[in-house]
Amino acid sequence: MSAFSHLSPGFAPGSVWLVGAGPGDPGLLTLHAANALASADVVVYDALVDPDVMALAREGAVLEFAGKRGGKPSAAQRDISERLIALAREGRRVLRLKGGDPFIFGRGGEEALALAEAGIPFRIVPGVSSGLASLAIHGVPATTRATNHAVILATGHCAPDTSMDWAALARTGAPIVLYMAVSSLPGIVDALQQGGLPASTPALAVHAATTRRESLIEATLGALPALAAQGLIQSPSIVAVGAIAAFRQSIAAHLLDASPGYGAEAAE
Amino acid sequence: MSAFSHLSPGFAPGSVWLVGAGPGDPGLLTLHAANALASADVVVYDALVDPDVMALAREGAVLEFAGKRGGKPSAAQRDISERLIALAREGRRVLRLKGGDPFIFGRGGEEALALAEAGIPFRIVPGVSSGLASLAIHGVPATTRATNHAVILATGHCAPDTSMDWAALARTGAPIVLYMAVSSLPGIVDALQQGGLPASTPALAVHAATTRRESLIEATLGALPALAAQGLIQSPSIVAVGAIAAFRQSIAAHLLDASPGYGAEAAE
Repeated sequence: MSAFSHLSPGFAPGSVWLVGAGPGDPGLLTLHAANALASADVVVYDALVDPDVMALAREGAVLEFAGKRGGKPSAAQRDISERLIALAREGRRVLRLKGGDPFIFGRGGEEALALAEAGIPFRIVPGVSSGLASLAIHGVPATTRATNHAVILATGHCAPDTSMDWAALARTGAPIVLYMAVSSLPGIVDALQQGGLPASTPALAVHAATTRRESLIEATLGALPALAAQGLIQSPSIVAVGAIAAFRQSIAAHLLDASPGYGAEAAE
Repeated sequence: MSAFSHLSPGFAPGSVWLVGAGPGDPGLLTLHAANALASADVVVYDALVDPDVMALAREGAVLEFAGKRGGKPSAAQRDISERLIALAREGRRVLRLKGGDPFIFGRGGEEALALAEAGIPFRIVPGVSSGLASLAIHGVPATTRATNHAVILATGHCAPDTSMDWAALARTGAPIVLYMAVSSLPGIVDALQQGGLPASTPALAVHAATTRRESLIEATLGALPALAAQGLIQSPSIVAVGAIAAFRQSIAAHLLDASPGYGAEAAE
């Protein structure tokens, strides 16, 4: 029991909580997420959930990996949903923990739909979105007053097969935050340039933000594919395209270090 | 000291933390935000920060209101920034607490810039974005696999003076999440329809999500202006436009109640 445990509803046996774990730093968990970790019987977690977060699970909780890792065999989405349903039917408190926010490119909708069809009660606990947080801690705002009043979040996952019209996104003039796009950068960058974005548009990539493995690279739109090909932008990264990517240069000198490991830093 | 306080860095006197408070429910604070509330000397907070959140501030902390309320006089942005700088120069631990996420339509960038120019060390702690969370807890995903692989976050603040091309946003086909748009709905809806979105496009508005004052209304794009004129959509609300707004109908029956007041619910 923590000082904050009274702020969360009880975790009923036989229910599933679909919870966002944020970008990696355990300090960016919500209180609901931390409380759920402290009371769940089973935690079904993704590859994108950081080990420092999993360390907060209740002693004795069963931890089940159900993530996808690039290039390695991964659990099919249907298998994951069926596992959640089976665990709930056994009367467990089931915490489905996903990196970032479960409803932003997280396929949380599909899991929610499967649970609803099976008649399993569930709760959705939003998390800090990995993309927006990865940028924010490094001084990159999703929106600035000086530029547009909109921001586009887009994923490169499945591109170039996707039906998404990248040129239309470019034509809005809004900054673009790309999730899971490293391997698709050549096609995406080409399409964004066809939509009117100059190759000189500021861009920035953050890998594994808020974790001990983090790295950041500042670039331009046109330079992104070569940087990815050289391995200087690694997957998974968040990529920002637009004036927001240049904003950090005016504030970074006074920005307190955002990583790695707030915990370690505090303990020193 | 909570069980989680070791997860946050120390709050140095003379520094400012720009922190997102999330949508209202204190359970959606991050651990860093809760820890900052427990250790700050001064909390400078917005109108959008819920009283239940402010209740977590350290006993003895000075609480300063610096928000904007529709129709009432509000502190100018420059005044707020100067106040943060003055407090930091007095050697206080200054927590600047903003509703939602400070870097999504939160003008956090402007405050960060003022702090950097004044040489004040500061930290940015992302929060759960009010718009995305308001929708998620009601079963509305920002993205679905079936539809587009992108979502647009846009604000109606300052519209129709804004230079934003709403029709271009509509032409992307991506779902749109509107922040602070209630008073601008007639112009925005008109422009979105000019961009090709049918009046029958699913839409949904959530007012004061995750708080005790919350309400939700399901509608269509074309019906939004009349609902706002009738007072059925109140400011501040988050408005979703696109297939994502209809998705909740397939899962809502099994969604555990998201509000009001997790805490009260748990205490019963």
